Amino acid sequence: MTELKNDRLLRALLREPVDVTPVWMMRQAGRYLPEYRATRAKAGSFMDLCRNPELACEVTLQPLDRYPLDAAILFSDILTVPDAMGLGLYFTEGEGPRFERPVQDEAAVNAIGLPDMEQDLGYVMDAVRTIRRELHGRVPLIGFSGSPWTLSTYMVEGGGTKNFSKVKGMMFDRPELMHRLLSKVTEAVTAYLNAQIEAGAQAVMVFDTWGGALTPLAYETFSLAYMQQIVEGLKRESEGRRVPVILFTKGGGFWLEQMADTGCDALGIDWTLNLSEARRRVGDRVALQGNLDPCTLYASPERIREEVGLVLQSFGHGSGHVFNLGHGIHPEIDPDHAGVFIQAVHELSRQYHK
Amino acid sequence: MTELKNDRLLRALLREPVDVTPVWMMRQAGRYLPEYRATRAKAGSFMDLCRNPELACEVTLQPLDRYPLDAAILFSDILTVPDAMGLGLYFTEGEGPRFERPVQDEAAVNAIGLPDMEQDLGYVMDAVRTIRRELHGRVPLIGFSGSPWTLSTYMVEGGGTKNFSKVKGMMFDRPELMHRLLSKVTEAVTAYLNAQIEAGAQAVMVFDTWGGALTPLAYETFSLAYMQQIVEGLKRESEGRRVPVILFTKGGGFWLEQMADTGCDALGIDWTLNLSEARRRVGDRVALQGNLDPCTLYASPERIREEVGLVLQSFGHGSGHVFNLGHGIHPEIDPDHAGVFIQAVHELSRQYHK
Repeated sequence: MTELKNDRLLRALLREPVDVTPVWMMRQAGRYLPEYRATRAKAGSFMDLCRNPELACEVTLQPLDRYPLDAAILFSDILTVPDAMGLGLYFTEGEGPRFERPVQDEAAVNAIGLPDMEQDLGYVMDAVRTIRRELHGRVPLIGFSGSPWTLSTYMVEGGGTKNFSKVKGMMFDRPELMHRLLSKVTEAVTAYLNAQIEAGAQAVMVFDTWGGALTPLAYETFSLAYMQQIVEGLKRESEGRRVPVILFTKGGGFWLEQMADTGCDALGIDWTLNLSEARRRVGDRVALQGNLDPCTLYASPERIREEVGLVLQSFGHGSGHVFNLGHGIHPEIDPDHAGVFIQAVHELSRQYHK
Repeated sequence: MTELKNDRLLRALLREPVDVTPVWMMRQAGRYLPEYRATRAKAGSFMDLCRNPELACEVTLQPLDRYPLDAAILFSDILTVPDAMGLGLYFTEGEGPRFERPVQDEAAVNAIGLPDMEQDLGYVMDAVRTIRRELHGRVPLIGFSGSPWTLSTYMVEGGGTKNFSKVKGMMFDRPELMHRLLSKVTEAVTAYLNAQIEAGAQAVMVFDTWGGALTPLAYETFSLAYMQQIVEGLKRESEGRRVPVILFTKGGGFWLEQMADTGCDALGIDWTLNLSEARRRVGDRVALQGNLDPCTLYASPERIREEVGLVLQSFGHGSGHVFNLGHGIHPEIDPDHAGVFIQAVHELSRQYHK
């Protein structure tokens, strides 16, 4: 493998010294970029794009050609895993992802099998290998998966949900069935992330988009416990380097201590709490990734710089901070504003790493 | 005025002893009840129902005829105030509320006037008076309003929003304009709640549905500061009794201490934190209202009772707890399940008030 030219991300995730704070953006390969929209139009559907390793590589690299980002993140979707488990993923215009065969009873849970990573999800591993090759060691590649709880919400509801009626119904009334489903998904996610690491992912992130919809007890039982199993089951070293694991529960600011206790390397933080408080609470157990309100990028360049400065100040001196938005970049953002943001992180963070 | 026969709600909000924990449900007059759907069909549009004091009274009382609830809450909409400020509220099927004339620039902010409470919002005050008369003192009547920040999100976006692009754009780029808008809305909300109190509301609640979408600093500056102004501007006594004020920021669990410092009487709590923790943090400064996950009502009666027991246990002994869901009851809930919930609160809470 080519030598890694910029390893700020990996160093910061392990709280090792860096020259400036590394920065990347969730959904950095996405609709706000005209070049992404062009490739997407060429590919056909969204899933056609995910399933085409060359084009998935192309869109993964696009933001790196525009901005001095410190990481690439695999272009894919969190629902590839349930799709590979046989649920039949499709996308409807305006309504988002749907499954042809949702998992709503015992028979459906029992019928689910563990997908074969190279056969059923080989297109993802091919994308990882292609991206690594085309990156030529410029920056590390982050792999990812949805958390078992988050994937299960889509699997049980049959798509996105506002009310979580079916999945929480199962959770309350059939907790043993919910656990059986979560165990199967956990096994698949662990294998999926390990396959990504073997294919070349140099860090991995677990997106728990819907953990914040739970009570503290339900979060611990139905989301965090399974993320912990994943952390314990992951290959933590590859190509002679540690592969850092980032856990991100949106709206999970109450549970940082428990999340840090899983043995992960870093926590994603949304913008509803200050990094100073997050850092005080987790101490030196984990690094922190975040946490600019993505809406900041609607503001003027001057204001974006100011807000970046406030986030850097909130984290304070020393390593252990990966700058990011607190959630994915919105599709209507002006790409120049994203550029201002990224440049501001590098410029303004230097003083915190002396 | 008729004597109040059941004053558990008012007593608990002021942390005075009660025999059992009082309970009501956000959106208790709503679509999950067939009798509500019948009245709604008779009324015409949703706003026709809000604007008809007799029918608004009818739906307000419907849940009280079914369940031994400890409070009535005025049937209305949080967007009546911006509507009365001239924005032209209308509802579209499936897309929720919209404004004909959103407030997106300086001219629009300057053009907004303070509505006349009896002329422009007289239908709300008539509803309050009608409900009070028809309640015959069975339980107290809660009045309410949206918070200035929450109302402003709809006013600037022109309706509901996922991304808050326009309102946060204004907040970041034109903070002085945002403050001017919030000041005007605050003045209107204060007058609106005072008019409700004069018309007969015996407690009032401020719904800050979207405060949780803010960073800590933005919350303090653009939401909490204005709720504090409201608390300071309210008539706190009527008919010889204190009129308790409840503040509820959905997703605002990080900011309970600051909310309690506003001088309000109680805080609404969603289900993402335990009442034991909330109580420890606010001490005896305020009462707490909440916080069963509304999805619990999808579960079986046995499980609903268990979950009610856990919430009661989390709050523990003594007064200062008003039981509620952590958010509005969902439209698909079986009305019998709501009944199980309400009965369980009364039965299981007795032991905590000995």
